[in-house]
Amino acid sequence: MNEYRTAPAEARRIACIGAGVIGGGWVAHFLARGYEVTAWDPASDAETALRALVDAAWPALTRLGLADGASRDNLTVAATLQEAVRHAEFVQESVPEDLELKRDVLARIDAATPAGVVVSSSTSGYGMTEMQQRCATPERLVVGHPFNPPYLVPLVEVVGGERTEQRAVAWAAEFFEVAGKQVITMDREVPGFIANRLQEAIWREALHMVAEGEATVEQIDTSITQGPGLRWPLLGPCLTFHLAGGQGGMAHMLDHFGPSLKSPWTRLEAPDLTDELRDQMVAGCESAAQGRSIEDLVAARDQGIIAVMEAMNEVRGSQR
Amino acid sequence: MNEYRTAPAEARRIACIGAGVIGGGWVAHFLARGYEVTAWDPASDAETALRALVDAAWPALTRLGLADGASRDNLTVAATLQEAVRHAEFVQESVPEDLELKRDVLARIDAATPAGVVVSSSTSGYGMTEMQQRCATPERLVVGHPFNPPYLVPLVEVVGGERTEQRAVAWAAEFFEVAGKQVITMDREVPGFIANRLQEAIWREALHMVAEGEATVEQIDTSITQGPGLRWPLLGPCLTFHLAGGQGGMAHMLDHFGPSLKSPWTRLEAPDLTDELRDQMVAGCESAAQGRSIEDLVAARDQGIIAVMEAMNEVRGSQR
Repeated sequence: MNEYRTAPAEARRIACIGAGVIGGGWVAHFLARGYEVTAWDPASDAETALRALVDAAWPALTRLGLADGASRDNLTVAATLQEAVRHAEFVQESVPEDLELKRDVLARIDAATPAGVVVSSSTSGYGMTEMQQRCATPERLVVGHPFNPPYLVPLVEVVGGERTEQRAVAWAAEFFEVAGKQVITMDREVPGFIANRLQEAIWREALHMVAEGEATVEQIDTSITQGPGLRWPLLGPCLTFHLAGGQGGMAHMLDHFGPSLKSPWTRLEAPDLTDELRDQMVAGCESAAQGRSIEDLVAARDQGIIAVMEAMNEVRGSQR
Repeated sequence: MNEYRTAPAEARRIACIGAGVIGGGWVAHFLARGYEVTAWDPASDAETALRALVDAAWPALTRLGLADGASRDNLTVAATLQEAVRHAEFVQESVPEDLELKRDVLARIDAATPAGVVVSSSTSGYGMTEMQQRCATPERLVVGHPFNPPYLVPLVEVVGGERTEQRAVAWAAEFFEVAGKQVITMDREVPGFIANRLQEAIWREALHMVAEGEATVEQIDTSITQGPGLRWPLLGPCLTFHLAGGQGGMAHMLDHFGPSLKSPWTRLEAPDLTDELRDQMVAGCESAAQGRSIEDLVAARDQGIIAVMEAMNEVRGSQR
């Protein structure tokens, strides 16, 4: 690719290919951020379902604050994939999670999209290297993996494949930031990226527990919503355990609870807690703490948990 | 045990054995709920550290609302374990996570605690069966596993050992409910109980990622706080995926994404997705949904995420 057609901050016309739960969620997000969106989906009732999804999301998006000029009228549903991408300045693909289908659709998108336009895939777990194989200009294809619902959850994981240009990854990361997302740019392909590896571990453990009769679906969900789930909006799993170590932080935690990594608390085998890994975790937590003391972090965590509990009480109260 | 000395709703005097991060957190919780607490810890500076922890927690507890008569003056620090439990109507043990130590301390507590009083252990992962071996009256010993900080996070997992009476489990569950906790009573011992199995799976996956250089500590934490962590205070992992299935719910999710259980998204092997497991997950989600349609749940989730995001914005703003 010679040049990218538009600067990330100037792209206005977005094509969304695939308009199910995720693709439709992207459509709602981009409309709310003031973009012009052209969508395409092969399903016969796609337009009706898509407009219903956008309508259902709109009150939430309005409450969060619409961008200037944001309107549901800026949505066009195209009759063909080619028509959808013809004038696009950015393309987001969200077709079902099937490798052959992804390869095929991405090749068709690549063939029909103007040169100099980045194409991003919502895939939850495939690497771009395996998806871009049939594309004529694979260098502009990236993964831009959102979380459900994409119009609310900020995170997007951005990563290229072996044949992706670094410039395309950087373009996409900047574009998503401008479009209101929180971006993690990964410098290598990992199956499931970061967040899905983590949440998939929880999910598989939950399936094991149900399969073995160790817990019910409701007990599993309650154990998260009334337990560790209250901490995770403010502190991720690493800083959470940094605080479990008391004044000694992550170092004390690992030295003290390290042996429990040998316990059968999950079906997932732990890695060896080498000195190197220990030191990386400690240094990572120090860095993430950004100079805040354990006391500061405990106070922040407590304030966060209270705020979440109060918010949940309000939400549950209003839903009764 | 012939009779329980006190009805769960009438117990007022609590002994807390071990007063570190978890034991001290229990002390703060019980004080805030209006109980009289006697604590004991062998550390030489235990009383200073404990009172500092309670003082640090008190503003949060005050904001959440103290029970009638709640006061930090209701805390006594005893000189010996025996003195701490002598008049107790309920005992919560929170010594460090070491099986030999737990066995020893629980036997000492059991020997010194009046007959007819339930003794509960905060252990994060040991089964009561292996901890109660040296106790003269093992039938009154239960696990009552809290989450950090115990004065804020509602969840307590309650389970007995092989030699625990069912009545003791029921007594403890009722007592914790009265004391303001959210209780999951398990009918069998599982290493790590429920929530710790789930969060330990995330934690081990995170350690693998850092060990392999796939993600940094900060990327891992951000991927949760800006991603799935925003959904978990309202919807646990099962109902979250129920919604990922669109109108088809969990059934569609499993039928559609089931094959990805074979993908290397985590180091944790998934169980076989048998028809039986599929049906259990679907039925569990239907039950947990309590008659709410997918639309209702989506609206509730969106409202929850917005409330959490707004709460986090406020907390982060006030901490700058």
